[in-house]
Amino acid sequence: MSTARFNPIIDLSKSPHARLQPVPASAVELSDTFWEPRRHINREATITSQFQKLEESGCFDNFRRAIGRKQGDFRGPVFMDSDVYKWLEAASSTLATHPTPELEAMVETAIELIEAAQQPDGYLNTHFMFDKAKDRWRNLRDDHEMYCAGHFIQAAVAHHRATGSPRLLKVAQGVADNICATFGPIEQGKKLGTCGHPEIEMALVELYRATSEKRYLDEALFLVDMRGQNPSVCYEGQPLGLGGRYYQDHVPYRQLEEVTGHAVRMLYLAAGATDIVLETGEEALREALDKQWDNMTSKRLYITGGLGARYEGEAFGKNYELPNERAYTETCAAIASVMWNLRLLNLQPQEHYADLLEHTLYNAVLPGLSLDGAHYYYQNPLTDDGTHRRRAWFGCACCPPNVARLLAQLPGYFYSVSNQDVWVHLYAAGTLKTTLKNGQSVEFKTTTNYPWDGTVEIELASGGKFGLFLRVPGWSAAGATLLINGEAFTGEILPGTYVELNREWQAGDKVTLQIPMPVRRIFCHPYVADNLHRVALQRGPILYAIESTDVSVDVRNLVLPATADIEATPRPDLLGGVVVLSGSAITSNDSETSPLYGYSRSPQLEGDPVDFTAIPYYAWANRDASPMQVWLREM
Amino acid sequence: MSTARFNPIIDLSKSPHARLQPVPASAVELSDTFWEPRRHINREATITSQFQKLEESGCFDNFRRAIGRKQGDFRGPVFMDSDVYKWLEAASSTLATHPTPELEAMVETAIELIEAAQQPDGYLNTHFMFDKAKDRWRNLRDDHEMYCAGHFIQAAVAHHRATGSPRLLKVAQGVADNICATFGPIEQGKKLGTCGHPEIEMALVELYRATSEKRYLDEALFLVDMRGQNPSVCYEGQPLGLGGRYYQDHVPYRQLEEVTGHAVRMLYLAAGATDIVLETGEEALREALDKQWDNMTSKRLYITGGLGARYEGEAFGKNYELPNERAYTETCAAIASVMWNLRLLNLQPQEHYADLLEHTLYNAVLPGLSLDGAHYYYQNPLTDDGTHRRRAWFGCACCPPNVARLLAQLPGYFYSVSNQDVWVHLYAAGTLKTTLKNGQSVEFKTTTNYPWDGTVEIELASGGKFGLFLRVPGWSAAGATLLINGEAFTGEILPGTYVELNREWQAGDKVTLQIPMPVRRIFCHPYVADNLHRVALQRGPILYAIESTDVSVDVRNLVLPATADIEATPRPDLLGGVVVLSGSAITSNDSETSPLYGYSRSPQLEGDPVDFTAIPYYAWANRDASPMQVWLREM
Repeated sequence: MSTARFNPIIDLSKSPHARLQPVPASAVELSDTFWEPRRHINREATITSQFQKLEESGCFDNFRRAIGRKQGDFRGPVFMDSDVYKWLEAASSTLATHPTPELEAMVETAIELIEAAQQPDGYLNTHFMFDKAKDRWRNLRDDHEMYCAGHFIQAAVAHHRATGSPRLLKVAQGVADNICATFGPIEQGKKLGTCGHPEIEMALVELYRATSEKRYLDEALFLVDMRGQNPSVCYEGQPLGLGGRYYQDHVPYRQLEEVTGHAVRMLYLAAGATDIVLETGEEALREALDKQWDNMTSKRLYITGGLGARYEGEAFGKNYELPNERAYTETCAAIASVMWNLRLLNLQPQEHYADLLEHTLYNAVLPGLSLDGAHYYYQNPLTDDGTHRRRAWFGCACCPPNVARLLAQLPGYFYSVSNQDVWVHLYAAGTLKTTLKNGQSVEFKTTTNYPWDGTVEIELASGGKFGLFLRVPGWSAAGATLLINGEAFTGEILPGTYVELNREWQAGDKVTLQIPMPVRRIFCHPYVADNLHRVALQRGPILYAIESTDVSVDVRNLVLPATADIEATPRPDLLGGVVVLSGSAITSNDSETSPLYGYSRSPQLEGDPVDFTAIPYYAWANRDASPMQVWLREM
Repeated sequence: MSTARFNPIIDLSKSPHARLQPVPASAVELSDTFWEPRRHINREATITSQFQKLEESGCFDNFRRAIGRKQGDFRGPVFMDSDVYKWLEAASSTLATHPTPELEAMVETAIELIEAAQQPDGYLNTHFMFDKAKDRWRNLRDDHEMYCAGHFIQAAVAHHRATGSPRLLKVAQGVADNICATFGPIEQGKKLGTCGHPEIEMALVELYRATSEKRYLDEALFLVDMRGQNPSVCYEGQPLGLGGRYYQDHVPYRQLEEVTGHAVRMLYLAAGATDIVLETGEEALREALDKQWDNMTSKRLYITGGLGARYEGEAFGKNYELPNERAYTETCAAIASVMWNLRLLNLQPQEHYADLLEHTLYNAVLPGLSLDGAHYYYQNPLTDDGTHRRRAWFGCACCPPNVARLLAQLPGYFYSVSNQDVWVHLYAAGTLKTTLKNGQSVEFKTTTNYPWDGTVEIELASGGKFGLFLRVPGWSAAGATLLINGEAFTGEILPGTYVELNREWQAGDKVTLQIPMPVRRIFCHPYVADNLHRVALQRGPILYAIESTDVSVDVRNLVLPATADIEATPRPDLLGGVVVLSGSAITSNDSETSPLYGYSRSPQLEGDPVDFTAIPYYAWANRDASPMQVWLREM
């Protein structure tokens, strides 16, 4: 069931510098066999089970304690409230498209607690109550108060858009007004400060979009401007210097030309700064963002789309520092990257943003969730000995509700519109029913078996004059073809572009895009130490991995000849239905005979052939534990 | 100046299960141009400057505060006292061989503070004073009280051996008796407990050796036995489970078959457990130690001898997890490995222990110290972009005084004796003058330019019947020769053994061992991700590295052909006098043209020849900053 509510992930309908705007999630119906079954599990199982986890882990009790309904100590980390808010955003976004009485009741439970916990001055944080109330806004570096506020505001805006109710939006304005009244230019009698964990920036801009109150946009810009002051304004006037890198507080933001420090903080901040550019068009900020994105994608991005190379600090490493086994690649960082790329894509519609967004969804966000929708990864290594398994919950449970909200909002990522065009970024079977800014309504149905097959058929349900921009993925080989009502399109169809079809459409018109999906070998820059003489396999948007379960040898001893044929085969029975890659590799037994260090080169490869089957990386660790590898030895 | 004091690093003279015992450091005079100049700097500059650092950083003030001579807060980490103790051990060991009034005055300053700070019950820790006194022995997991006590006891024993004074030994017995009275079997009315940071075990066994009070040995064994209880006895009865791995508290110690967790903790513990075996001969403990050593050397050891792959937790990684750039390889862990291998070598004299000891000294301990003796590394990466530089001191300053005490005690590592034999483990120009257990005196002079040249001449100053065991290093190629008074020795001289010369020696007898020192290429096990298709260079005991300063290209683009000739050249002018390796490699420009990820293999290597000069790894980062690499790309 779909409602007509206006519930885009971000509302760019009035943003002066947005070239495009995402359509509301409710304008999109997915009926595909890839995403929609996952969204079904998300609605039917994940969101409910997470509600129970919030109860079990003490998140809700923290609210009850704050409002005097419960005794005892605050439970969990200082940012515990944010778990409730991310869940609430997931649940609210689900209410927009699939409301049920049960879900409404759960949401009501949360809302009632939140409303009651808000202080008279608008402040809202269940940790800083009672004896801790004196510590409010004292340690901005570590205490995550604006971070929690930001997640709440995002949830409130989502709830407002989903239901039309003003309740949570009112609370959110109180929270935001309290921040605006507390932090700002000294000339206005306010304090300097910004949060150690960015997140509030995106939220304040979205609240501005929802309310048209410009003070929220100004405050977001102020909070970005406060970064990189030395001494730091987020921690007692201490100079953080390079130690501030973790917090993106070592240089003023416009001078930050790399992605660095804690990955989720970095990426939420970049997304928030992009939101500001969408409203202000500020060139200096846009330039910094471009440099950060270039640094990320050319030096610090995993082949999965994952981000954050280091366990220590959950952080980006140096250029080319991309270890596979100790990849941190927090699921939340991948989600943050999707959020950032959505904003960039609507700011300046370039296909490489959509490429990264899609790639990250399939290969960096999705591995964070088990096929049963009830177990999660926080870290997503690219090779493992079989010991790293998904868990039902975490002490720091940021990732699970983040995955839930992304899946709930996923349809909103598929399409953007402009004044007279509709842009198709992602492909899945389903329908779109929306209206362009010029008033032209657009309705079409997509038929495809994407991501397993590259043929996408779009059939228009109504006519009109508008441009249809179809994404030709960067991963596609040359040779994509396009038919309009069975006739070949004669323009260029280049990988890594949008093909523009601009005409007076008739109801029943059919556009058929055929994107070849050969198996592609991917090679890595030689400075990435782990990947020298290694190869990864991709087909369509899906990155592959080999689990030792599927080969007769330890996958570390498998060597893929450059000439090996690799076949793609649908396996509807396997792992929820996948296309596997298979072929013949050779085994090396140098691992058995080599000492840790020796004076002679490893013996020649044995050459015994071994059959292998590679599965989508996102599906790894859903069977019995066994070693897994994305990057395969190559010869 | 040398005294006749009996000051071995560890006193195994009465240890029933020691096959060998180290000679006193004072029995050894080094006159070489490698170690002795470093020891000179250590005596003349390092120990004095560290004394000042202890003053500046507040270490001594913590003592003054504890005894009421100073107001203010305790400064530094909870284990701050241990910096004083390690320095005091270094200074005391220096007093044994090179006493000066200035050094004696510095030592007196420390002793007087320590004596005054000891509590009536023997307890000694300047952190747990005043309002913190209530927390004594409460959080054994984190509070490092026995760790500090252990370092103090080691210092006290060293001071006693150096000076004959009973002062500090008396304080040490009070400290140890307090621990013995507090922790022990419940039946004896004591508490169960053990320290989160091992160190006390070695110290208690050494105190037992110094005093013959068996309760100290029993206590050391008790503290080892307490590990791996679940719930943990070192933290409020909490089950640490796998989280206890960091503290070596996840399994009982005799079931620990790998080196794991915090590297320094692991290795101090292993050294302490080996001390226990030297006294008790316990087979189960010895078997666990053998397994740990095997795991370390076959799976978790850097080519430098460095230990500890992970920044997070300063810890060992999994098998084959040995990243080069993010190698943690704490200098203290290398020192701990030297200490452990000394104990193993005297327990069961096998050449591989001496190999690792020597290799670690040159290539893992020494890089921790700058050539000027005043700057230190805490972490010792195997490749670096030129940003990781030595520092004058650290907030957690465990490494600097640890290096100082090792250099002060270094002569004691060179030789061991048994009833009728003398064993030569390390080579350097100098003299040995000692007595075997059977009363036979041994005196000889060594002439060599080791480690740059493999010819070692030993000339006996007195005669007698004894066995002379000369180490034939594991790194030596076949072809070592040995002359006795100019005549060829006809027995086998195999790399990785001790050659035994057993005869009635005459004063003036000359033994000449000629160990070939070709440049050797070292290859790594294929499971070490960073080192696939890479090669390292070694000559004699010295591991080499290339700094970009010495080549005309970024060292990451240098590819060493398997057939390249490599020449060794003495460079007395360079880096304090080294032998460099040089030759011609080729450059690769694939780094310029390759994207981070691409669909085509990196272009063919360009093949432009480039001359390179490799320097000893220990000497890196003593010139202008530039990228450095130990493991070179190979083709």
